Amino acid sequence: MSYLTDVGTVCWFLEKELEEAIRQLHSTVGNAVTDDRHIVVGTGSTQLYHAALYALTSPGGPEPVNVVSAVPYYSSYPEETNFLCSALYKWAGDAYTFDKEGPYIELVTMPNNPDGQVRGPVVNRNDGKLIHDLAYYWPQYTPITAQADYDIMLFTFSKSMGHAGSRIGWAVVKDKNVAIKMTKYIELNSIGVSRESQHRAAKILGAVSDSSQCIGANFFQYGKSLMAERWTKFREVINRSRLFSLPKYMEEYCQFSGEDSEPHPAFAWLKCNNDIEDLEIFLRRYKIMGRGGSLFGSDPKHVRVSMLGDEETFNLFLERVSSIQDTISNSNGNGI
Amino acid sequence: MSYLTDVGTVCWFLEKELEEAIRQLHSTVGNAVTDDRHIVVGTGSTQLYHAALYALTSPGGPEPVNVVSAVPYYSSYPEETNFLCSALYKWAGDAYTFDKEGPYIELVTMPNNPDGQVRGPVVNRNDGKLIHDLAYYWPQYTPITAQADYDIMLFTFSKSMGHAGSRIGWAVVKDKNVAIKMTKYIELNSIGVSRESQHRAAKILGAVSDSSQCIGANFFQYGKSLMAERWTKFREVINRSRLFSLPKYMEEYCQFSGEDSEPHPAFAWLKCNNDIEDLEIFLRRYKIMGRGGSLFGSDPKHVRVSMLGDEETFNLFLERVSSIQDTISNSNGNGI
Repeated sequence: MSYLTDVGTVCWFLEKELEEAIRQLHSTVGNAVTDDRHIVVGTGSTQLYHAALYALTSPGGPEPVNVVSAVPYYSSYPEETNFLCSALYKWAGDAYTFDKEGPYIELVTMPNNPDGQVRGPVVNRNDGKLIHDLAYYWPQYTPITAQADYDIMLFTFSKSMGHAGSRIGWAVVKDKNVAIKMTKYIELNSIGVSRESQHRAAKILGAVSDSSQCIGANFFQYGKSLMAERWTKFREVINRSRLFSLPKYMEEYCQFSGEDSEPHPAFAWLKCNNDIEDLEIFLRRYKIMGRGGSLFGSDPKHVRVSMLGDEETFNLFLERVSSIQDTISNSNGNGI
Repeated sequence: MSYLTDVGTVCWFLEKELEEAIRQLHSTVGNAVTDDRHIVVGTGSTQLYHAALYALTSPGGPEPVNVVSAVPYYSSYPEETNFLCSALYKWAGDAYTFDKEGPYIELVTMPNNPDGQVRGPVVNRNDGKLIHDLAYYWPQYTPITAQADYDIMLFTFSKSMGHAGSRIGWAVVKDKNVAIKMTKYIELNSIGVSRESQHRAAKILGAVSDSSQCIGANFFQYGKSLMAERWTKFREVINRSRLFSLPKYMEEYCQFSGEDSEPHPAFAWLKCNNDIEDLEIFLRRYKIMGRGGSLFGSDPKHVRVSMLGDEETFNLFLERVSSIQDTISNSNGNGI
């Protein structure tokens, strides 16, 4: 089995079958424009993030290009951006407070990880370039309100389908030269992407596209109903006390399902409303693992918790959150 | 399917089944020590090369660490090392002429790509660290003269088995902290390695280990006989004129096959003996594609040609080399 799939396309290691399945799925779901766009496959969208940074910068600049994202941002971006100490780009933190001159790259995660909010670019200057991370822009997580049509859009098999271990991501790219340079990055970084994973992803994406025509066996509708159920249960638990709060989301019309619906994000961005200073440490005492707000450029009164664990883990999580609230309420009731 | 395989091991995304198959294969072939060594899996050995550079350097040094390799070196090393303009390391060229002070990393490719020679480190200073690229240290290419036992040894499913498209490589690493840092690189670069490819590689490596017990169905003996036949044919063609020459190799005792044998490298390092200045350009006129010597830090009178194409391609290659020799001989005979 060779490195090569089709030397005629921009992304020479992309399986034709996978490319077709990706275009078909976006067309079925209506979440992204792919006509006249280039598809670049990566070892997860993480490798494509690196590829995009490489594609949007050039050697020889006076300073590394600043990379920003609005707080709260995906916690891995700072380390992923800086760990090789590249002279091409460097992490510059929160897009809201960014005030340096010169070219910059803004990461727009939509809907956002960790807080599930739908958002757009923040800096909005002419010398900026955008990378849209649309990992969670799928009907099980959020209403599909429009076909996304940005310069570089990153998607992943992990978040769309749940197959993180396959390490398949894809970028939908407008500019041919950017797609060529992203492909070059992946060539120099790993000489392509697993063909086994590409084959398997193509089959699964194809089956999911097909399922979207079926009432009762629709993958995304099923995923959405599971997520909605979890969010309902979780909000019920949270609303029993004033200890914690969750972001509020607006209902919007989902073009995929043809009905109004609320977002049901993959993560809950939990906030504590009392004088607990570090929520991550506090929750750990109750055996609840979350990622503290500071890692997302936010404050330690926030924690990101996963809504995607298996059923047993999720139920245990609900029980433990309930037990905290009971304990604290009882303590307060007793005047302690 | 999750990101995780086994959180207890150093390389948390390595499939247990693959780790066992790798250790078993090295034990069967006798080409590398793996007892008390850590295995790190990568998206091909290219990703592991990047991981090793990251693991052997640290931020904050006064200068990037110099990376060298003896000429002729693998042509992708310079670009792979420099393309992200890292402040951690930089390509410094030929190990033979390296005279800078301070820490350095030397890449030792053994047997060497492009010229098939068996070689060791060249700089030999106390402040150096070594990465051994042993992609071709398998019985079909070269006699197995000893169990390799170096600090970092890179292997790949591509060159050992021919499955380049799976993008599976592995490193055998002595120092636990180096293995941890290499794993961290892969986490930050692609959050692990395709599990589909790992499963498939495990099955194939297992089958090859089993085949090595069988007389008549031994994968490596079969590969070696094919390579030996190709080299015999190619040398016959080359020896018909004085236009080209090939490296000479010594016979050595192969501990795997239990017999004396010559190397049969995956590439031929072809040299022209007349006044052709750029052999790559010259060969292209005869529809022979090779990679010019300059890319390997050598001179343009050399070209690397592949000995691994399919049977039809290889036979066509032999015919075309023959036809050049006939043309040139006839020209000389006619006094032109």
